[in-house]
Amino acid sequence: MAKAQIGVYGLGTMGSALALNMAEKGFRVAVGNRETDWTRDFIARAGALAARLDAHEDLADFVASLTPPRLVFFMIPSGKPLDDMIAAVLPLLAPGDMLVDGGNADFHDTRRRAADLAESGLDFVGLGVSGGEDGARHGPSLMMGGSARSWARLAPVLTAIAARHDGDACVAHLGSGGAGHFVKTVHNGIEYADMQMIAEIYGLLRNGAACPPAEIGRIFAEWNAGPLASYLLEITARILQTRDPETGHPVVDVIKDEAGQKGTGRWAVIEAVRLGQSASTIEAAVGARAWSAEKATREQAQDRLGGGRGGLALDPAVLADAMMAARVLGHAQGFRLLAAASAEYGWALDLARVAEIWRAGCILRSALLDDLARGLRAGPPRGELLLSPHLEGPLARGVPALRRVVAAAVAEGHAVPVLSAALQWVDTMRQGFGGANILQAQRDYFGRHGFERLGQAGCHHGPWWD
Amino acid sequence: MAKAQIGVYGLGTMGSALALNMAEKGFRVAVGNRETDWTRDFIARAGALAARLDAHEDLADFVASLTPPRLVFFMIPSGKPLDDMIAAVLPLLAPGDMLVDGGNADFHDTRRRAADLAESGLDFVGLGVSGGEDGARHGPSLMMGGSARSWARLAPVLTAIAARHDGDACVAHLGSGGAGHFVKTVHNGIEYADMQMIAEIYGLLRNGAACPPAEIGRIFAEWNAGPLASYLLEITARILQTRDPETGHPVVDVIKDEAGQKGTGRWAVIEAVRLGQSASTIEAAVGARAWSAEKATREQAQDRLGGGRGGLALDPAVLADAMMAARVLGHAQGFRLLAAASAEYGWALDLARVAEIWRAGCILRSALLDDLARGLRAGPPRGELLLSPHLEGPLARGVPALRRVVAAAVAEGHAVPVLSAALQWVDTMRQGFGGANILQAQRDYFGRHGFERLGQAGCHHGPWWD
Repeated sequence: MAKAQIGVYGLGTMGSALALNMAEKGFRVAVGNRETDWTRDFIARAGALAARLDAHEDLADFVASLTPPRLVFFMIPSGKPLDDMIAAVLPLLAPGDMLVDGGNADFHDTRRRAADLAESGLDFVGLGVSGGEDGARHGPSLMMGGSARSWARLAPVLTAIAARHDGDACVAHLGSGGAGHFVKTVHNGIEYADMQMIAEIYGLLRNGAACPPAEIGRIFAEWNAGPLASYLLEITARILQTRDPETGHPVVDVIKDEAGQKGTGRWAVIEAVRLGQSASTIEAAVGARAWSAEKATREQAQDRLGGGRGGLALDPAVLADAMMAARVLGHAQGFRLLAAASAEYGWALDLARVAEIWRAGCILRSALLDDLARGLRAGPPRGELLLSPHLEGPLARGVPALRRVVAAAVAEGHAVPVLSAALQWVDTMRQGFGGANILQAQRDYFGRHGFERLGQAGCHHGPWWD
Repeated sequence: MAKAQIGVYGLGTMGSALALNMAEKGFRVAVGNRETDWTRDFIARAGALAARLDAHEDLADFVASLTPPRLVFFMIPSGKPLDDMIAAVLPLLAPGDMLVDGGNADFHDTRRRAADLAESGLDFVGLGVSGGEDGARHGPSLMMGGSARSWARLAPVLTAIAARHDGDACVAHLGSGGAGHFVKTVHNGIEYADMQMIAEIYGLLRNGAACPPAEIGRIFAEWNAGPLASYLLEITARILQTRDPETGHPVVDVIKDEAGQKGTGRWAVIEAVRLGQSASTIEAAVGARAWSAEKATREQAQDRLGGGRGGLALDPAVLADAMMAARVLGHAQGFRLLAAASAEYGWALDLARVAEIWRAGCILRSALLDDLARGLRAGPPRGELLLSPHLEGPLARGVPALRRVVAAAVAEGHAVPVLSAALQWVDTMRQGFGGANILQAQRDYFGRHGFERLGQAGCHHGPWWD
């Protein structure tokens, strides 16, 4: 049997799809999985592609089946499972071999693993893979972090399997060490915010305007034909028009309102705060998921505090403009976070390229990303998308709409944490003179922290210390 | 010369005040500082208390001057300076000696230091000290984390120097390892939120009702005579009525609107997210400080996006009720965070006791803390202050007021990130059926994550996977 060019270890949803994608692009792929029956099932379902897939039940056989220098993709849960797996495979590898972690890892761990494995002469790559199962199978967006040497070797494989946007492969070498996983983390953070703002606007139509789900689905589908076009809006439109086969109800009406979350949203928030920022739309979205899981408390709070929500008379066109503004602001906060991390970790991230490789394949893909890519390529003032002339239009229409929507929702008791966070950010940032003079006075009063005076250098104290 | 009972190393604002407090309570205190001229200045300013203060310029002399087993308070910056200091003093100590870190440390570091020093037979205590300079000098609130043995030895000292609330010393042994520093971190997080909400309400009166600072100061002073009484409101009232001696303007008008921050607010946010929570009022306050520091960007954003804020017709009584609701909600989020950390780290925190020792001495001291202490002592439903009968009154009046204030601020373009975050939390929590069904449907659609059905156990998928 000919040796395989690539190994894929871990045949969950994403690993299976990626291995099939590689085989379809002509690569000979060895596959393995801890639970060996998964491997057999996978091959049985692979159809004609099975001819280019070599299944191995034993890890040593799996490694031995690869052409040296070996290239192994790990598609397994991050954290301890990955560290254990690396420890198990290490004795089987030789200098020059390359390990690719295609899962969602904390980029701090990726940096550590890359440094550790470099001591054994191994190349370690943190690869962000976005697009869900369908993306992984037919073309994901790929965010690669690792050495230039690793990129030279991996580029042909990644370019072959990646999504295409007008012919441009949605893959890039973003920087060393954890750059790829960090960009993927921020991608997911923005995704959390985008999903939550869609859910909030759904809630306003459903609870504020008594609109049935299928009707909201039609409204979303209509928006999706214009500048709001995005994968998440498209699938939400489909979801809302889907009936539960068991009960005949709209499927969303039978789904429990407790959202799960894995690590990436939280990592994005933590890293923003560590870097002295606030990605408030992502924070609000992560918070909304956390609170959703407290259903029993919410039920008691409804009894005690009243759960009533009033009617809303909002034109769907205003809601559409508000969604656009919130989407722009959520993305702008994500890109601020990328810029801050790039400066901190020396990645020299090409932010426009990040927007470009998100235009297809990934969950965030949208018409907006075209504008963002152009805006970032042009170099926005102070590096801030908020100030970019390319986004002036959507913000000039969208922010007043967002303001009307949030004001109405607040007045009538509808929860809109992410829409509200987006508006608070823009309202804070558009005040050249804000309210922090009060904080500085308080800090000086109780803790002698000192403050700057307007137009004067140095640290001053208030007369309360005289 | 008689040996000293206590050593205080580090004579900055807090260390100096604490050493004087100890001397005044009759303890003989050895003092030292890296910059030895600070030590001399300190003694020169100590007046009659100098008789109980022994200054040492050399670290070995400082340690040798202490009665064994020695008791040393470090009042120096946390992080590397403290680790360096511990390394320097370690060879001079003997098993049974005790080190107390009275600075603001990351409680993870405190846990590590306690474990490391235990190997040398040393007791390490993380002590949260709140109250600013005045509190440290005349009676702070003291949050102690360490072993029962450490507490037995420290209690007489801490009880003597602590603030009193109706005769009850504001000090408690809260748990092992980092418990004291963690409680102090959350105290500071709540403080960030409280300061910011005062600043926001100031902003509404100043910019929305063209109220001059001194007039706002009088309004705040009036509120401070009722249930809103708090140290932070009291000092803000004083600040607003203070004129800048140099220009004659209200002092707040000459202070630059860029707020500083040290670590505690950020640590509180990061730990909340790590623990699967969202302390959204603290997040918003930390974010507001971060954005305040971006003054140049804000000035450009004002030009581009318009900085206008409309007039507001809000009755001050409504603003007062709104402030009360926001304060309750900020504190409730802080106590949720304490409960989650206590469960995670096995501290068995007595939350009511935490509220009790915050009733005097610390920056958060307020009339509200009496209600919180009573509510926590009674054991609120599900452990949630949001559901406590003791807070029903302020919330029933306050939440509708908060809603009116936030709706008006949003409509007229005034930034109110913390008031808004507080309201979004309560509006999210009082919905027994929220919007997370949409998120779960989306996650299943793109990532096959599965969802629960209402009233049915198990993991289900939507018909899009059939």
